[in-house]
Amino acid sequence: MDSFKNQETGDFKLLVEGAGGARRGRLQTAHGVVETPVFMPVGTRATVKTMTPDEVAELGYRIILANTYHLNDRPGSDLIARMGGLHRFMGWGDAILTDSGGYQVFSLSDSRKITDEGVHFQSDRDGSRHFIGPVEAMRIQRELGSDIAMVFDECPPYPCERAYAEESVERTLRWARTCSEQPRAEGQLYFGIVQGSVYADLRHSCAQELVSIGFDGYAIGGVSVGESEELVRQGVADTVDCLPRDRPRYLMGVGDLGQMVDAIGRGVDMFDCVMPTRCARNGSAFTRRGRYPVKAAVYSEDDAPIEEGCQCYACRRFSRAYIRHLLNTDEILGIRLLTIHNLHLYQSVIADARRAIETGQYEEFAREFQSGFERIDPAHTDRSGG
Amino acid sequence: MDSFKNQETGDFKLLVEGAGGARRGRLQTAHGVVETPVFMPVGTRATVKTMTPDEVAELGYRIILANTYHLNDRPGSDLIARMGGLHRFMGWGDAILTDSGGYQVFSLSDSRKITDEGVHFQSDRDGSRHFIGPVEAMRIQRELGSDIAMVFDECPPYPCERAYAEESVERTLRWARTCSEQPRAEGQLYFGIVQGSVYADLRHSCAQELVSIGFDGYAIGGVSVGESEELVRQGVADTVDCLPRDRPRYLMGVGDLGQMVDAIGRGVDMFDCVMPTRCARNGSAFTRRGRYPVKAAVYSEDDAPIEEGCQCYACRRFSRAYIRHLLNTDEILGIRLLTIHNLHLYQSVIADARRAIETGQYEEFAREFQSGFERIDPAHTDRSGG
Repeated sequence: MDSFKNQETGDFKLLVEGAGGARRGRLQTAHGVVETPVFMPVGTRATVKTMTPDEVAELGYRIILANTYHLNDRPGSDLIARMGGLHRFMGWGDAILTDSGGYQVFSLSDSRKITDEGVHFQSDRDGSRHFIGPVEAMRIQRELGSDIAMVFDECPPYPCERAYAEESVERTLRWARTCSEQPRAEGQLYFGIVQGSVYADLRHSCAQELVSIGFDGYAIGGVSVGESEELVRQGVADTVDCLPRDRPRYLMGVGDLGQMVDAIGRGVDMFDCVMPTRCARNGSAFTRRGRYPVKAAVYSEDDAPIEEGCQCYACRRFSRAYIRHLLNTDEILGIRLLTIHNLHLYQSVIADARRAIETGQYEEFAREFQSGFERIDPAHTDRSGG
Repeated sequence: MDSFKNQETGDFKLLVEGAGGARRGRLQTAHGVVETPVFMPVGTRATVKTMTPDEVAELGYRIILANTYHLNDRPGSDLIARMGGLHRFMGWGDAILTDSGGYQVFSLSDSRKITDEGVHFQSDRDGSRHFIGPVEAMRIQRELGSDIAMVFDECPPYPCERAYAEESVERTLRWARTCSEQPRAEGQLYFGIVQGSVYADLRHSCAQELVSIGFDGYAIGGVSVGESEELVRQGVADTVDCLPRDRPRYLMGVGDLGQMVDAIGRGVDMFDCVMPTRCARNGSAFTRRGRYPVKAAVYSEDDAPIEEGCQCYACRRFSRAYIRHLLNTDEILGIRLLTIHNLHLYQSVIADARRAIETGQYEEFAREFQSGFERIDPAHTDRSGG
């Protein structure tokens, strides 16, 4: 908490607003400034998988996401609190956003039972019984000491009947109100989450209600849960329009580069996704042209780097042939090198987007990026843990 | 091969010879100078498991071992040759020693058949049929382009009948002669291997014969294959006495720190072992007092580093509690951090040993080290691959 300055935390400066909607901003957290637009790598269990915190920071990242559900499971938020909080525990000095655990409770756990107070569920790991509601979710995030805590919400699956979506939004809003009244860690920001499935009017009213409660930032939840890319785009558009201009906007769990570039153009500031790290573990490399499997036999004697022209450590030092060999013999270094490359690429695309906004050329940048980029099945963008 | 200078390669300078037997030396290879005594981390499949080559070099290592058997299996020495050799393939600029594959052919493969020309065997991975003899082993190592190639030998198991040991030594010597006549990669050194099981006279005659053939260095093979620590010590003593003073001596596969400190005192110069890397993957940390499981519940809230006073990256940055959490949730970073620590410790003990030899205080150093160190079951020191 060394860098914490009470009067500044939560301050969000809009440096540039493009005519088309893209924004360049700067969010002050208790652990440093976050430049937006920003992509947050996922560090589910207090580690961005395979990476040291120093390696993540060297790639230019100043904020990561950690999962409340997983950390509450192991090693426990109480243990992390006794060890001085999540930053100290994992050796990460910059900002941390924690999700509320809601998504995982609804998607990962067995035999869950929803009440007004929260959700009773069984651990998917050992079958033990637990309860998380808005009070518990904010307590856990307070114990973790994250810089940005997300409210406990219900993220309904797709497709979702109108009647259930209405009921779910009402519950999410009741929980958001309870969350907003909970005590915070020093300098901690609270973000509300807009739900409403594919129903624009529900998203509008949900957003309005959240704004009237008042949060430090607002997230677009419940998109990219299996619906078409067009519906993802529509969900984003329906929500962004109702969000206050002067607060950061966070599109949860969307990590397809094409969708991110599109959403930035609509005024979204923050993203997170397991894609760059998870695909690395599956042997896939991202490039500005899309994704490809480095394990493929065609690369067995390919002396080129993973992506021509890339300046990441993996591309500066190693060939596709070597990385393919590592992946095919289950060597951890192969996964490490792909993770470095994929996270470098995401950071590099975001850096280009920022520059394009600053110079008033975002539409041009986005058009050019999209024309070269092959979209990836949005079903791959999930948040069950990095 | 940039650093290759024909006239120097193989040059072994003895800088200090202690009264007790310990030696400080300097071996010139085609890829740089190797200071001895030296411990070589094992990079079975062209990677010291979990580590980048730069991280290995940062720990101070200037030579690693790679396994001929495994690299011949995947990706194939012919492929590595086409990619410019093992150094270029894996991005390691310093020296590489390759074993001959003999140990693995005898210990890992199924349904092997030994003939005068070599060994017919089935791959333990896919059941495919292969043949490796002295000619093949040296060809593979030539294709890999290692700096030090080991002769193809038979490493008999323990216990071993006298009659079989005699027959095996004769075969090993025939093969050594054939190996010595094979063409070499540029600047490549050939090391002979002394066998003879627990029979001192067989070891003596084997060593004498090898010396009469003439090699760039000599290895003590067939020890630490399941026999008692006393017999390991005896095997080393029996062999060292017969080896020429002016050539490096390499004790194969012995990586217990106590046994290494003992062997250095008897005049051994080189070591390799999978222990520091393999034990890291099993969740064990080495210290100057022995080995302990970081996964143990007692460390769950332990804020201390893996080893008090250690200056490695893992100990400077992270607590036992965090590393234990990573290990218990199967996070790769946990294994990475233990690997860094264990390899740092080995390098640090070797550095202390070198200094002690230089200042004529090796016996004192060894006594002090042994008094604090708890020996580890030598059955753990195997060479089936790092």
